[in-house]
Order: sequence, then structure tokens, then C-alpha cells
Amino acid sequence: MTYKFASRMNHLKASEIREILKVTEKPDVISFAGGLPAPELFPIEAIKEASNRVLEEDGIKALQYTTTEGYSPLRKWISNRMNKKWQTNFGADNIMLTHGSQQGLDLTGKVFLDKGDIVLCESPTYLAAISAFKAYECQFMEVATDEEGMILEDLEKVLESHIDKIKLIYVIPDFQNPTGRTWSLNRRKELVKLATKYEVAIIEDNPYGELRFEGEMLPSVQSLDKEGWVISLGSFSKVFCPGYRIGWVMASKSLIEKYVLVKQGADLQCNTMAQMVIAKYLELYDIDVHIQNICDVYKDRRNTAIKVMEQEFPTEVKFTRPQGGLFAWVELPEFMNAKEVLEKCIEKNIAFVPGSSFFPNGGNENTLRLNFSTMPVEKIKEGLKCLGNVIKEMSV
Amino acid sequence: MTYKFASRMNHLKASEIREILKVTEKPDVISFAGGLPAPELFPIEAIKEASNRVLEEDGIKALQYTTTEGYSPLRKWISNRMNKKWQTNFGADNIMLTHGSQQGLDLTGKVFLDKGDIVLCESPTYLAAISAFKAYECQFMEVATDEEGMILEDLEKVLESHIDKIKLIYVIPDFQNPTGRTWSLNRRKELVKLATKYEVAIIEDNPYGELRFEGEMLPSVQSLDKEGWVISLGSFSKVFCPGYRIGWVMASKSLIEKYVLVKQGADLQCNTMAQMVIAKYLELYDIDVHIQNICDVYKDRRNTAIKVMEQEFPTEVKFTRPQGGLFAWVELPEFMNAKEVLEKCIEKNIAFVPGSSFFPNGGNENTLRLNFSTMPVEKIKEGLKCLGNVIKEMSV
Repeated sequence: MTYKFASRMNHLKASEIREILKVTEKPDVISFAGGLPAPELFPIEAIKEASNRVLEEDGIKALQYTTTEGYSPLRKWISNRMNKKWQTNFGADNIMLTHGSQQGLDLTGKVFLDKGDIVLCESPTYLAAISAFKAYECQFMEVATDEEGMILEDLEKVLESHIDKIKLIYVIPDFQNPTGRTWSLNRRKELVKLATKYEVAIIEDNPYGELRFEGEMLPSVQSLDKEGWVISLGSFSKVFCPGYRIGWVMASKSLIEKYVLVKQGADLQCNTMAQMVIAKYLELYDIDVHIQNICDVYKDRRNTAIKVMEQEFPTEVKFTRPQGGLFAWVELPEFMNAKEVLEKCIEKNIAFVPGSSFFPNGGNENTLRLNFSTMPVEKIKEGLKCLGNVIKEMSV
Repeated sequence: MTYKFASRMNHLKASEIREILKVTEKPDVISFAGGLPAPELFPIEAIKEASNRVLEEDGIKALQYTTTEGYSPLRKWISNRMNKKWQTNFGADNIMLTHGSQQGLDLTGKVFLDKGDIVLCESPTYLAAISAFKAYECQFMEVATDEEGMILEDLEKVLESHIDKIKLIYVIPDFQNPTGRTWSLNRRKELVKLATKYEVAIIEDNPYGELRFEGEMLPSVQSLDKEGWVISLGSFSKVFCPGYRIGWVMASKSLIEKYVLVKQGADLQCNTMAQMVIAKYLELYDIDVHIQNICDVYKDRRNTAIKVMEQEFPTEVKFTRPQGGLFAWVELPEFMNAKEVLEKCIEKNIAFVPGSSFFPNGGNENTLRLNFSTMPVEKIKEGLKCLGNVIKEMSV
């Protein structure tokens, strides 16, 4: 028997990260692979308090269906927060809650992409955004990036030559996944100018922006846009906990109406209880204290990672020094293949993600992504020292 | 400025039900419109107990990312339950959890449908399945139904003449939404035979099957399939509570792998906490006691609804007498338009859903769907008497 699948199924394959994560489920593995927040920081007691309060005060509402847009008090909180932190000027009506910001990516594909359309993205870019958009049978054109973001001359060249097919520019301007890099203010401004000139929507994905360990926050790309070309995606996964799967999309009201239409068909609404528990937590507790706590711990871990890499990696290995977020990016000498390095590392119970998965059109086999948020400092020392040794052995 | 949307956006419009539900948010409205479970039956105290136990015993796991397939103990429980109640023979590996069974519909569209493909469905069929599949730009061919299910001669005629384009047969064999009808055993068997002969996948959507007030449960369509053509969708929304958004898809392992692939891109996974709370509830409490309680209450409400319709509706109005579920279906005289009836009813604070929305290709303006699960008996009496009067006035 042969099932007749949609043609998109020919292009979809299992996420390499998810497959590697299966290996890393063994408790003794030192994993730099996932994008997991440090679970020991989850505010379990506070969540218990918030859950009980919600069930006691408004249990029927919390367990019933709700609107597709999501729970108003939470949307109001998010818009206030975004305006305060990222200099936007939006209200609750500009926000629709999503089942994690991954759903924001999927719904974006649904709203914008026809088969054969082009998505412009940073090179490298977020692996699961590639999967989400690929389900709509689009093509990807990668724009080269440096320490400040996309290289604008390259971006304009691509826009000019392929404007008929380009539907979206997808960027992660703060502590990018996978590189950890942050766009400069100037590049943000110029990106908005170009999108406005060529009339292309920008997706600004910002799950890590609040996890800044040092330096000044920059205005979001969306805050620099006066016409409504920018759609931003946000999430509670990295500043609260991922298990609740609550993220959001923020955009002009006419765009939010489109997202509501597609979310209705996709899953009706987000988990009502989760929305109300998060809103209650935000009412009862100061999330800034919690975020500061996360930043303190991750900063230590990043410092450790950088220090060990400086000491233990051969000098020809390059790596980023992120000011926040969860990830650093490593470039091995060109002759080296990160998948082969990974194979040797897994024998020693160490895992990371080879970088080629983050390039939608492949290549760059000598790169890899390191997560520094999940493992405690001692494990980071041990794991990266070991990784350094494997690289040295393979350099000979 | 003009955003460049995907072509599917031209065909999507706001759900008529959701728009009507906005009207019915006023507390004094007697609503037969939604598909809401009776909220006063939600086991709030038990859920509180289960939530606290999960957070105390395994809080870190409950708040962290988990697998796309979903929490194993819950998948194991579901497969056991399905085997026991519906005579299938599956294990946890045949199950993937979904964000409500609405997501099961969306992912089905993603796995199977290319632009222009045909979905065969009952006439009428579930409104939100139409929205879910329409996002993949398919066409619908409606197969006439009677009291026993699809009329098989009609089904075979369509299969024969359009087999190249037909990807799915979508059915709701138990207490169908919107008609409340249940397929006979013979039709179930013949449906499987035809699908096998023509090699077309069947989607068996069964959110209401456990809410049987009388009569014998029949084996599921899936249990009659020896080759793996049937994919079933299930949900905790109607037997537990909808706010948690936990449903499932059950199918052959090779199909579940495809669903996992598309769910990864769509939203990574279901809410971890919700999965674990439901599993804990099922461990601590007897859900059959809870379901019996729901059935007792709904049976009373259905009895009331039927009795009032028999007494108060003109004899030329026909309606179904469902043995379970949430809905009954009304056929007004052909000259009458249910949308006009609704307008008059809304003036009197009474709401229902006009039936034409349940026909993907339109028509049947003289039909309507009545939900009998949400309103208490006294409101049902008052509301249906009033609806009867409006129909009488418009009959003159």
C-alpha cells in the first residue's frame, strides 16, 4: 500500500537537533546541543501558587474554550512590556498569542508563502524556522552576515534581482540563533528602509532579547518601522518556561486579523489555563527579578565557555562572544567537518549541533553551535576542554 | 501599502460560529450556537490536585521542552483506552498528541493535501474541518448522507470518477457534528472496503463518541481496517475540558512519523504541563465516573430539547434525535432561511448556527445546528420555545 502524500513531504526531514537530542537524553551526557533553558531556574513554587489562584478564582474560565486572539490581560501586559523594553507603540489588539513562537513561524508561512516564493534569511539562520517555512515549499536565499547583521549591499542586490518572488525577510536581531550575534542600530534602520523601499514584510524573531548580560538594549527593528512592514515574534519560553508553549505575534491590526484567521483553522486557540497562569504569575511576581536571576547564571556560564575555548581551542578556531542569549558559534578550520567532530565527541558523551543544519542551502561543514545555558559551569569546563582536545587531535 | 499574502488567504474567511459566539458573550443570551462542554461539570478540584502533584513530583520536567510525539504515559493510556473502547489494536507508538483535535485536522491537511486535491466529506460536515483543509487550497466534494452515514453508491460514484485528485475521505461516524447522527456498522465496514479498493486514506474524527446516552457503542471505522488506511483523531476537550488543548492522532507508525515531522515545524510539541496534568488526573481519578456524569446531564438536556421541539416546532420542521454527543440538526421548510431566523432570534437573545456553514459548497439555507450541552434545562425550554415561535411567525 502507498499513501498519497502532499508534495511538501518530499522536502521535510527530521530535525537534526531533535535526533541528536535523543542521544543526549542519557543523563551523563554533557550537552551543548539543545536550546533548553536551565531547568533549575524554573519558578516552580510561584507557578504552583499562580495555578491554584487561577483555578480557585476563575477555574471554569481557565478550563473552557477562549478566543483565538488569546486572554486579554496577558495580551495587554505583553504590549506594555514590548513598548517599554523595545520602544514600540502597540496595544493588546496588535497581539495574538501563539503556541510558542514556533507557531508564529508556521502561521507566518501560512499567511505569506506560496510554493516557489522566496524567503530571505541571515546566513546562518534558525534551524526550525527553515522547517516551518519549508512546509510551504518556499525557497531560501541566504544573505551574508557579519558582526553587525546582514550585509546590506548583499541584501539590496538580492531584493533588486528577485523582488517578484520575495515574500519575507526573516531576521533574529538579538543574540541570534545560532551565532549569538546582535545587529547594530544602523543595520536595523537600514533594514527597515530597504524593506519599505521594496515593500517586503520583515519577520523579527526575538525570543532571547531580554537575556542581555551586558551592554545597552537597542530598539527593536519593529520600533523603527513607521509603515507596518515588521511583524515581531516573542515567547515566554526563554524568560519563564517553555513547557507552557506561550508566545505571541505582534503586528499591525490588519495583519493580526490574518493571523487570527489562520490560527482558527490551525488549532482554534492556545491553552486557556497556560495563558491565565502566566498572567497571574506576572500579577503576583516581578518577572524582572526572575530574568535577572537567569541572566546572572547564564553570564557565568558564557564566561566559563569563552574562557575555556580561549584556553583549550587551537588558535585557528574562531568563535563568537555573545552579550546575551543561549548560543555561541564556532568556526573550525575549513578542512574540518563538524559532523565528524561530533561523532568523536558522542563517544565521549559530549554533544553539540553541527552548523550546516543552520544553512538552508547547506555547506559550511566546518561550523558548529554551542548552547551555554543548560549545563552547569563544571560540566561546561569539562565538556569544552574535551571538545578542544578532539579538535586538536583532528587538526594533526 | 499592500502586503503580499499567500493565495490561500483569498479563500479564508472568519468562522461564522466564532463571529456569532462574540454576540453570545453577553451573559443573558441563551446560546445553542457553540460546541462548548458544560463548564459546571469541569473537575476543578481534581485538576488542582493533579496540577499540584505534577509540580511537586516532577516540576522541572513539566515546565521544560519535551518530545514532539508527547508524554509517553499519556500516549500509553490513550492507546489502551482506544483498544478497549473502540476495538483497535494499537500501542503508544501509534499515537502523537496534538494541540486539540483541531490541530489533528490541520496537520492532516499538511501531510496530504496539495492545491487542487479533493477531500470527500459528509454533507453536511464539521465547519472547522472545512477551514483547516481549505488552508491547503483543496476542493471539497460532498457525499449525501442519511440516518446511517454516507450513501455508499454516491461515494463509490465519486471515487470512481475523481480518484486521481481524491486524497482523503473525512468522516465523523459518532454523533456527527453538525447532525448528531451515528453511522451503522454496515456502512462503517463498506466505507473501509471502498477506501481499501480505491487506496484513499480515511480520517475518522471522533471527539464525541464516548458521550453515548443510550444504545450500543459500535466498533470504530479504524478497528475495521486491516491495512492502515484509517487515521483517527481524538480529544480530551469533550470528556475532560477543552482549555488544555490536548487531542491525539492515531495511525500506523509510518503515518505517525509523517505527522511528527509536520508537527515539529508547526509548534514543536504540546504543552508539557497539560499532558502531565491529564496523565496524573487519569492516574488519580476514574474518568469513567466523570464521563457518566457528563452523559447524565447531557441526556437530560437532549431529552428536554427534543420534547420542546416536538411540542413547539411546526410539524413540517424536521430534526434529528441523537443518541449522544452535543448537537441536533434542524431542517426548516425549504422556503425558510435560517440566517433570517437567526437575526430575529438574536433580537430575543437567542443564538444558534445556520446550517449552510456546514456545507463546504454552500446551499441548504433552511438548516441549522442546535447545541444542547451548554445551557441548563430551564434555558433550553425557554430558548427553544422562543425559537419555535419565531419559526411559526415566519411560516405564515
